[in-house]
Amino acid sequence: MSATVDIAQLVCELCRNFYALGWASGTGGGISIRGADGIYVAPSGVQKERIEPADVFVLDASRLDRACVVRAPADASLRISECQPLFFNAFRDRDAGAALHSHSLWPVLAARLASPDGGPGVLRLRGFEMLKGLRGKGCFDEVSIPIIANTAREAELTDSMAAAMRAHPDVDAVIVAGHGIYVWGRDWVRAKTQAECLDWLCRAVVESHRLGLYDAPGGSP
Amino acid sequence: MSATVDIAQLVCELCRNFYALGWASGTGGGISIRGADGIYVAPSGVQKERIEPADVFVLDASRLDRACVVRAPADASLRISECQPLFFNAFRDRDAGAALHSHSLWPVLAARLASPDGGPGVLRLRGFEMLKGLRGKGCFDEVSIPIIANTAREAELTDSMAAAMRAHPDVDAVIVAGHGIYVWGRDWVRAKTQAECLDWLCRAVVESHRLGLYDAPGGSP
Amino acid sequence: MSATVDIAQLVCELCRNFYALGWASGTGGGISIRGADGIYVAPSGVQKERIEPADVFVLDASRLDRACVVRAPADASLRISECQPLFFNAFRDRDAGAALHSHSLWPVLAARLASPDGGPGVLRLRGFEMLKGLRGKGCFDEVSIPIIANTAREAELTDSMAAAMRAHPDVDAVIVAGHGIYVWGRDWVRAKTQAECLDWLCRAVVESHRLGLYDAPGGSP
Amino acid sequence: MSATVDIAQLVCELCRNFYALGWASGTGGGISIRGADGIYVAPSGVQKERIEPADVFVLDASRLDRACVVRAPADASLRISECQPLFFNAFRDRDAGAALHSHSLWPVLAARLASPDGGPGVLRLRGFEMLKGLRGKGCFDEVSIPIIANTAREAELTDSMAAAMRAHPDVDAVIVAGHGIYVWGRDWVRAKTQAECLDWLCRAVVESHRLGLYDAPGGSP
Repeated sequence: MSATVDIAQLVCELCRNFYALGWASGTGGGISIRGADGIYVAPSGVQKERIEPADVFVLDASRLDRACVVRAPADASLRISECQPLFFNAFRDRDAGAALHSHSLWPVLAARLASPDGGPGVLRLRGFEMLKGLRGKGCFDEVSIPIIANTAREAELTDSMAAAMRAHPDVDAVIVAGHGIYVWGRDWVRAKTQAECLDWLCRAVVESHRLGLYDAPGGSP
Repeated sequence: MSATVDIAQLVCELCRNFYALGWASGTGGGISIRGADGIYVAPSGVQKERIEPADVFVLDASRLDRACVVRAPADASLRISECQPLFFNAFRDRDAGAALHSHSLWPVLAARLASPDGGPGVLRLRGFEMLKGLRGKGCFDEVSIPIIANTAREAELTDSMAAAMRAHPDVDAVIVAGHGIYVWGRDWVRAKTQAECLDWLCRAVVESHRLGLYDAPGGSP
Repeated sequence: MSATVDIAQLVCELCRNFYALGWASGTGGGISIRGADGIYVAPSGVQKERIEPADVFVLDASRLDRACVVRAPADASLRISECQPLFFNAFRDRDAGAALHSHSLWPVLAARLASPDGGPGVLRLRGFEMLKGLRGKGCFDEVSIPIIANTAREAELTDSMAAAMRAHPDVDAVIVAGHGIYVWGRDWVRAKTQAECLDWLCRAVVESHRLGLYDAPGGSP
Repeated sequence: MSATVDIAQLVCELCRNFYALGWASGTGGGISIRGADGIYVAPSGVQKERIEPADVFVLDASRLDRACVVRAPADASLRISECQPLFFNAFRDRDAGAALHSHSLWPVLAARLASPDGGPGVLRLRGFEMLKGLRGKGCFDEVSIPIIANTAREAELTDSMAAAMRAHPDVDAVIVAGHGIYVWGRDWVRAKTQAECLDWLCRAVVESHRLGLYDAPGGSP
């Protein structure tokens, strides 16, 4: 494993990785990583598979109440990702080292099974080895991922996401109904690993349900 | 983001991208982009993932009633994409900066759910964040994408596509039943972004419907 | 489009392409192309995504009754692809310029819908634009692709494939039940294009059928 | 085919291949290969698509009762893959040249159809050409792949896997319910080929079952 990494380069590389996984189509999705000199965040509303290191913002890691720009891209038309306040929930309330957002279809479909009306709820995951990839979990645990209702603007999710995080301190993810999933971790490797495990698990729930082999993935929040 | 781009090169690069997404198999699909010196169009009936910049036609952007070649490929056997009159609908009637055509299965399946007999209709999209990627839409809007019937030859779609565009001035896409989707935008980024969002949405409709969680995607035109 | 191509290199490149499409996993699938100096065929039972030009056999194009090696790989352990007699059906009886074999799941599933017992039959394709990618067809035609029963060894398919080809002179493909599909064309571009269109069509039949929107894909041979 | 290969490099290359196939997400999956100087094993709990040759352990091939490190990575934080005792089952009891572990969803879903409660059982495969890719099998054989119950820790699978291997000497794979599949072979090519064939077969069983065309994939162990 490489000892040192250029964080801005890594953000771009992971965005391409997520695009290939179907997590970042339509300019959606992305990842934010804490580095020595601040928190690296991609710009808003751009094609995530095409960003370059010079497009990445660096924000002050000592000010997690709001976005204080330490280094801005040369291209002045770029704005900070709208996910920033949601990523900051994880940096501030969970001391995360990285936080990501995926627009993968699988969390959206699994959450719809769990909460068909798109309201708050939980997605119950059980019976799969991939649960072991989640912080502190074993493959025989039942894990409840909180689902929050979507809002008109991304920033309006900030409070309900923070509340869901307080209600579910044992998990590092929140699903937004009809929208996608937020996942974080102690560092970018754990954030990405947990996101991959959750994506696998959500797809497994949906596919098992279709086969008549997964009952009642939902519950109350 | 790179300040300047070679448009012919970009057309080729995006065609490879679309092939990888499953939008351009069997020589289908493609993209046309307005550049400073004209409108760039790929050749007809060739493998879209293998075209090279020298294969791309440049057409007169001041003559949007028909194809006037400004620069032709050296290979005289190449003909202009059969999508050209349909792309020109978007350049002429919507002042588009780019227009693309995808043979993705998802718009075809979603339209079939909405209009099982393959006749004209609309696909109703609602309840997903990805709607926000469509021009002027929010995630709580219901958006109706027009569906037109297929014709024996691509050029015969020109008038019904133009009529559907007039009937649906709020959307930048037309689905052709059993065939694929046309999407455009102010520039190539918006065309591609809207196409990716629509592809995600069409797949979400189909998969949700299979789970018994999406009613009545169709309506009258 | 490149004027000249190294055929052995092209065979390798297309095999990698087919592996990425899921057509050539488990050493299955492949393509054979007629060149100026003979017919190029990949070796048998090797990982198709990893062959190199030096591994490709060249066979005498004037002897289409059997495999006469014009040029053999340096690696003496390599044997000619078991598909060779089946590819030769297309070279001999249809004057094909290329023939390919795919292990894609979609033709196998579509054929199973059409002929659930795995016996001979036809797969009826209709109602999709992609039909236009098949030689001489329009999008409103109904096309019947012959299905033949599988046999213990690939070479034993030779006669039933040839018979199906005689019974269906209007199509350039034969599906082998539970196994895969053979597709050919005047040149490698047409073989690949038709194979991509058929793969799309087979998947569209399966997915439409699941949605309750495709009746009776099968028929008698 | 290249005459010589760097085994550590090959392990890394195949791990990237498996990640692209969806077999190694969330740090899961991997491959172990016997080389002239020992058995090469990837480290535990790391992103398999990002390992480098220097991260690979080499273990003593003459001591197959436990892991004796011949060469350790420079990075002292790396531990040996938790799959090591399971891979060693194949090296010791079957004289395997390579063993791999995949977290693909298809074996998990197929096994769930065969054994809905996640207990021991067998997955019955029949009616597909891809069976021919399994050691000693023909396409008309019925092959039973053993399924073992999952355990809290990977190493606890060692004995039940070994027992399943003794009970099914004719197959080179064991599925772990809700978890994934172990596959091995005389060399890495045969291990990978069998794994690709089994993955195709498991998906074919699941998709055929959904179409109402595959009965009773399960049986008692």
